[in-house]
Order: sequence, then C-alpha cells, then structure tokens
Amino acid sequence: MIKILIDCFGGDHSPEANVDGALAALEKYPDLHLVLSGDQAVLSPLLESRSYDAARVEILHAPQVIGCDERPTDVIRLKRDSSMIKAIRMLRDDDSVSAMVSTGSTGALVAAALTRIGRLQGVIRPAFCPLLPTMNGGIVGVCDSGANVEVTPEHLRQFAIMASLYMENVYDVKNPRVALLNVGKEAEKGDELRQTAYKLLSETSEINFVGNMESRDLLSGAYDVVVADGFSGNVLVKTTEGTALELLKKLKADIYSKLLYKLGAALMARMFRDEKEFFNYQNYGGSVLLGTSKVIVKGHGSSKATAVFKCVEQAYRMQLSELGPKIEDTISKYEHYEY
Amino acid sequence: MIKILIDCFGGDHSPEANVDGALAALEKYPDLHLVLSGDQAVLSPLLESRSYDAARVEILHAPQVIGCDERPTDVIRLKRDSSMIKAIRMLRDDDSVSAMVSTGSTGALVAAALTRIGRLQGVIRPAFCPLLPTMNGGIVGVCDSGANVEVTPEHLRQFAIMASLYMENVYDVKNPRVALLNVGKEAEKGDELRQTAYKLLSETSEINFVGNMESRDLLSGAYDVVVADGFSGNVLVKTTEGTALELLKKLKADIYSKLLYKLGAALMARMFRDEKEFFNYQNYGGSVLLGTSKVIVKGHGSSKATAVFKCVEQAYRMQLSELGPKIEDTISKYEHYEY
Repeated sequence: MIKILIDCFGGDHSPEANVDGALAALEKYPDLHLVLSGDQAVLSPLLESRSYDAARVEILHAPQVIGCDERPTDVIRLKRDSSMIKAIRMLRDDDSVSAMVSTGSTGALVAAALTRIGRLQGVIRPAFCPLLPTMNGGIVGVCDSGANVEVTPEHLRQFAIMASLYMENVYDVKNPRVALLNVGKEAEKGDELRQTAYKLLSETSEINFVGNMESRDLLSGAYDVVVADGFSGNVLVKTTEGTALELLKKLKADIYSKLLYKLGAALMARMFRDEKEFFNYQNYGGSVLLGTSKVIVKGHGSSKATAVFKCVEQAYRMQLSELGPKIEDTISKYEHYEY
Repeated sequence: MIKILIDCFGGDHSPEANVDGALAALEKYPDLHLVLSGDQAVLSPLLESRSYDAARVEILHAPQVIGCDERPTDVIRLKRDSSMIKAIRMLRDDDSVSAMVSTGSTGALVAAALTRIGRLQGVIRPAFCPLLPTMNGGIVGVCDSGANVEVTPEHLRQFAIMASLYMENVYDVKNPRVALLNVGKEAEKGDELRQTAYKLLSETSEINFVGNMESRDLLSGAYDVVVADGFSGNVLVKTTEGTALELLKKLKADIYSKLLYKLGAALMARMFRDEKEFFNYQNYGGSVLLGTSKVIVKGHGSSKATAVFKCVEQAYRMQLSELGPKIEDTISKYEHYEY
C-alpha cells in the first residue's frame, strides 16, 4: 500500500481538478490510497458525485483558505488549519503516509516542507527538479529551480546526485548525462561558485558529469540533468516555458490575421494541437522536491485534472522506486567538501 | 564625421559579411567613415571587387588570427597584431575614432575593452545590453547579459541607468519601463542582492522602475529594460533565443512529416518566413557594451552582412545621440551606495 496526501485547495482549478486527478490515479493503481486535504463541506459533495473505491479514500478536514498574496511565513504561522499546512503536519506525523501533492503556493510549500518535514540523511538542502520536454522526445530535469536562491558547490553536487538518481530510478534514464548550467562550455567559465562546482562534479564518480551547458542547449536532448543555483535555474525553466507559450500565442494570432493562413492552418490543425500538447508543461508532471524525508510534489498552479494525475503518479513512482534510501546511500559516500 | 572601426575577422561569415555590412552602412550615412581592421592581403582584394566611396574607408593592417578556443587573457597578451586587439588599441589612442564593431570572441573583446579602453566617468562596471523582440512589436533590452557574472546592488543600479538612457536616446523609447529580473514579483523575493537592488532602484528617481519581472514575462511587451546580474541575464537571453530556435526547428520537422501538413504550410509559407525573421536576433542588432568611454558593439558570431550593418548603424546612432555624456551626467547625481 502507498498512501498519498492530496492538498485539494490552492490551484486555479482546485478543488475539482485535484479531486479528479487523484481519483484517476486511484483507479490506475490498485494499491494506492488517498488522503484528500481540504474543507469537508466542499469535498464530500464532490466525492459523492464521482464513482470510486471509497475504501481507499479519506478526507482530512481543513477548513481554512490560503489567500493568493499571503507571505509563506504567515501561512505557516496563521493558517494551521489550511489544506496545505494540515497535510504537511499529517505527512510529518503519520508513518503510513509517504507522499504529498500540492498545487498551492510554492513559497508556502517550500517553507512548510523545510521547517516541518525532515531531510534525508546527509542532504544539506532539498531542491526542486521540474522536467521539460526535449526536441528528440526525451525529458530533461533542472535541479534546483527555485528552492535555494543561494548555494555552495557542495549543494550543487548534492543536487546533481539527487537529480541523477531521480532520472535513473523514476524515469529509467540509464546513466543520466549531468551538466552544470554556465555562461560558456569551458571549465574555467563563470564565477568562483561555478568553477569550484565544475571541479567537484568532475570528481564525483557516482554521476556521469558531461561538463558545462549553455542555456540555449537545454532542449537539445544532449542532457538529462542540469544542475543550477535556484535563481538561475528558475530563470532557465521559466524563460523556456514563457518563450514557448509566447511563440505559440504569436503563431495563433498571425494565423488569424489572414484567410489564406487560416486555410493552411486548417490542414495542420492536428499538428498545431500536438505542438501545443508537446509544450504543455503539465504533461510532464510537477516539480518534485528532492531531499526531503518524505516525497513532496508541487504541481503547477494552473494544473488541470490530468496534471494532478501526473503529479500523483510521480509521487507514487518515487515512493515505489525507493529513491530516498538510494539518495542517502550515495550521498553518504562523499565527505562534505570544505570551501 | 563619425569614424567607426570594424573588426573584420572572427565571425562565422567574416571577413566578407563584415566588409559588406560595413559598406552598406557607409552608403546609408554620408558622414560615416570606416576603418577596416584585418589582414590587408585579404581585405584589399575584397574591397577592390566592391564599389564604394574609397575616400571614407581605410584599412588597419592586422595579420594575426585569433583561434576559436584561445583564452581571452592569451589573446590580449599574445595576439597584439590580431584584427581585434589592433582595433582596440586604435580605438584607445586615436581621438578621431569613436566606436568599434566586432563579431569576434566575446570573452576576448570584454577583456580587451575593460583593460584597454577607459570607462565613462562614474561607471563602475561596463555591461552588455542586447535587444530582443517583444510580442507587441517592440524591443526589450537586458543589462547585463554576461560581462559581469558577479555584481552588487550599485552595479545593478548603474546598469538600470545606462540601459534606460540607451533605450531612450538611441531607440526613442519614452520613459522606459525598467524591471529587475527576479524569481517572483513581490519586493521581498530573491536573495539579499535582489532585495537591496529593489530598494535602491525604487529610490532612483531618474529611472522609471516598475518592480520585479519573472523571466516568463520577458517577451510580453510590459518592459523596456530588464536589469540582471551577468550570469542570470545571460541565461535569460540565451534561453529565449534557444527555445525560439528549437521550437521553429521542431515545427519545420513536423511539417515535413506529413503531406497534408506540407500542403498547409505551403499556404502559410510567407507567415513562417516572417516568424523566422521575427525571431532572428540578428535583425535587432548586436549587444552593445554600455559604460566604456568609447562605443563598443558586439555582433553575434554568426552575423551575416545585414547583422553587421545593424551593428554599425547602432554604433553610429549611439555616437550621434551623445549617450556617453548623458550617462556620465545622470550617474554623477548618485552617491555610490554603501552595502
């Protein structure tokens, strides 16, 4: 049995999308159990209108609502009865629960996870690792992408180890090619942080370090894992998403500007639909937080039911693959580097 | 008279593209004079086969060639007779020459510029400011995008002032909207550098600071200048270029996969050509180095003649607009912030 908590409030399409996504995963995985966190008065009627295996679903009543602009620290302090914070507490206290999925505020989730949920043994800083599609049909993970805006070379080495094991064990990528995000390919490029990290990563035999990556090559398919500080990793991921979205939006606007283009596009309707799906980051699951003692998956705020389903599936597979113990085992082989 | 130096070697299409681009600018601007730097034995025959106003063109003989993988410091030290380093020396020593355009190694150019060419009075660090097209048909400048991988809040303020004056005086953008690249929109987001810079930019009345920008909004058209450290600014610009290129490449491959799509695309051929031009960064000129006492424009290594022409035009307009004295004037109004 694998029991996963779903924070049912906080996303643009919550709670319906969260409930429906979770129930879809329930149907697919017979040993999956769900705890749905949120206002019982809203969740109960929602569940009643769906058909599902009620024996494997329970509700964690959490009536408080988190506002859009609330500060993470205020959420932890003042919203103890919100769906997110109650779920975090249950994740911490209940040994039968192994993972949590949330589409709520990233800042609040990170703050709550780091202060309430322990880290895997030896891990200094948990880090986010979202996945993006590459041009040859594969995926690439970027770690960290926002949990740690300031990092040391040792943090970067741990991100590399965790993300590499994640890709290998959860996505069956053999011997993942790990790169360091930098402003040029040569070893001596970048600031002191990058230069030291390059050296450290080169010395880490448990990963397949292939050198520096320039950001323009992210989608090329030449890399499986890209290691970065949380600030530039965030810029890398969000710029990719933003550019793809803006470009597709521009294409659409231009198509509607001329009858001839509209005719042409009609013949290509299926292709454009496919492109849109290809660049729809919801299809690649959420951003997992690597390094916490229990699995936490952050879904996009705009997640629909399919995206939530992918997140639950991700959490399920992470738990099944015993990623946590594997990370602890590998990290224990390295003395912390003194810098 | 405005005299501009052209480093004719170093780009993928040099020296032909550099010579042709420069001569096109010569034809457009009657008071423009050119100094073409490079091997006379190559440049003379090239010029002889073109028709142009020979009275306004001279050659600076520089026979040495810079290799692709040479370290910037080695270039400065060992390649004194290369087209780039001889040009930098002439730019420094000859008062009649006001600007330089190069498509050679960025690292070598920055190193040579910073050590050989002085800075404008009050400027602590020169910074690159490339331009990107926005979705509403405008442009946005990103400063810095790679000259300074480590910066202080005061550097960021100076980048904001320089880039704002650049957009206003060279591109007629009225009251440019200046944003700080950050991982979220709220003032308290990011590391200490970003938080202090936010405060400092808010207090700088000479610029129109509109707050933090998340990287996904770069192309939205809501900003005219984005201020960043050279590392994340580089990631921002290169990721945008890379994603747009990869996406257009994917569209092309997908079109060729089915006859129906090929038919549709035939009707839309003009549109696809326009999109490609829209996202062709060469159409928006080079990356100018703001803050040096003489104008330096870095063209893309893959620059063709049109791109070189745009770079020369940029340098010409920067000189004409008296951007340098305006930057000195504004920067002198601010005491350096102590951090």
